[in-house]
Amino acid sequence: MIRLGHGYDIHRLDSRENAGQPIVIAGVRFDGSPGHAPDFELGCVAHSDGDVIYHSVVDAILGALTMPDIGCLFPDNDPRLRGADSSIFMEEAYKRMVARDYRIGNCDVTLICQKPKVNVENDAGESVKQLMRENLSRLLHTPIECLNVKARTHEKVDSVGECRAIECHVVLTLERTA
Amino acid sequence: MIRLGHGYDIHRLDSRENAGQPIVIAGVRFDGSPGHAPDFELGCVAHSDGDVIYHSVVDAILGALTMPDIGCLFPDNDPRLRGADSSIFMEEAYKRMVARDYRIGNCDVTLICQKPKVNVENDAGESVKQLMRENLSRLLHTPIECLNVKARTHEKVDSVGECRAIECHVVLTLERTA
Amino acid sequence: MIRLGHGYDIHRLDSRENAGQPIVIAGVRFDGSPGHAPDFELGCVAHSDGDVIYHSVVDAILGALTMPDIGCLFPDNDPRLRGADSSIFMEEAYKRMVARDYRIGNCDVTLICQKPKVNVENDAGESVKQLMRENLSRLLHTPIECLNVKARTHEKVDSVGECRAIECHVVLTLERTA
Repeated sequence: MIRLGHGYDIHRLDSRENAGQPIVIAGVRFDGSPGHAPDFELGCVAHSDGDVIYHSVVDAILGALTMPDIGCLFPDNDPRLRGADSSIFMEEAYKRMVARDYRIGNCDVTLICQKPKVNVENDAGESVKQLMRENLSRLLHTPIECLNVKARTHEKVDSVGECRAIECHVVLTLERTA
Repeated sequence: MIRLGHGYDIHRLDSRENAGQPIVIAGVRFDGSPGHAPDFELGCVAHSDGDVIYHSVVDAILGALTMPDIGCLFPDNDPRLRGADSSIFMEEAYKRMVARDYRIGNCDVTLICQKPKVNVENDAGESVKQLMRENLSRLLHTPIECLNVKARTHEKVDSVGECRAIECHVVLTLERTA
Repeated sequence: MIRLGHGYDIHRLDSRENAGQPIVIAGVRFDGSPGHAPDFELGCVAHSDGDVIYHSVVDAILGALTMPDIGCLFPDNDPRLRGADSSIFMEEAYKRMVARDYRIGNCDVTLICQKPKVNVENDAGESVKQLMRENLSRLLHTPIECLNVKARTHEKVDSVGECRAIECHVVLTLERTA
């Protein structure tokens, strides 16, 4: 039988100086570095790198498995996780899923952010959304056809619409492997 | 195996004059016209007709199929889509789903709006929620027992609670037909 | 085949005096009473006891069954429901699910609240989240391994982030029993 999970995450945006780091979404940095997304003036306020997609996916996997959530596994007062690359949370969630004999059925991500624009290309002409899916595929050892990233704005209202935050909903199914 | 999708949409409300059109939800116009919902003083700010349920359902179907989202298929700067009836987006999503040999398993819609009241009847004494389900059923060629529309307020807080916006979450499953 | 449901609920918080009752989440009262969660200064504004998790779960079950939503079954102007223990809504949803020959597949709850802290223990050293899962398990006659409760903040933004409201998303699957 399949198991169903839902994940939600939100992070505040601030000036790059105040935030101390660029925005990173599904492993793609919005700082104009080679192979990443175009530079964006704001940064993400978070203890780790604040990757809203990775965090939501991790919580959806752990939720489907009825395991402690990301905030329990990786407390945001752990000094070792300051500025941490959130792919380590993905690796841990993947490991726990495999240990319980599950794999991803499919995963549908809804990123909600007014800015930065996500429907863009990087310096090499690659789709940023496609890069995000490739990162998910690599970390979850799951075919890219089973991993979707859609993006939309919050129509200029509330904190997300006013570019003060970005948020994400994820739903996914897990299937038994044994 | 089934595929899972999630869709989210939000649209701003404004005076009917500023918005230039009434609110339309799942094909039901809130303008008091025959067979539609009672008139409501506000309109929906959108490039198309701004149907939050149809848009969320389309994104959930496309998401389950890992296809480009509604914003990619129907850009909000396409002059041909100004004021467009969103049922054309539903028809396109349906066509793509069928071409990939899927049908709707079931679809559960959560509409969040402070106003207009949705739990009402039209001039013919028909339930507005039921009309919405019938519209979904017709456009998705899916039995009405597999399509649900629930509605609730946002308890008067944030843009939706203050009647400045309406929003919608949709989850659905797709099943293989072949 | 499985059926999928989504539930969402939000309730405003206010001083205990204005609200007239403590916050109750998945049957756990945040009033420091024995076996419940530590006391919290705010209360929940609602016609019933305002249990966001129970309300969301009920709507997800009814949604999966395409039955009228919680607002239709239990109108918030029914004087008999003033201050009602929301477990009666859970019992009604459970009864309707069983009558239709379904049981819970699994259920994943995402509680979003800035405060009170949910990742805490009660006076007997028991995990509050675990108590919530036990309450869900008892009311839904479902093994606890199929019921998950995760919690996170809203990063201090919008009504939930500013401790003026709490909200909840639930996704669940129903499986046929016959």
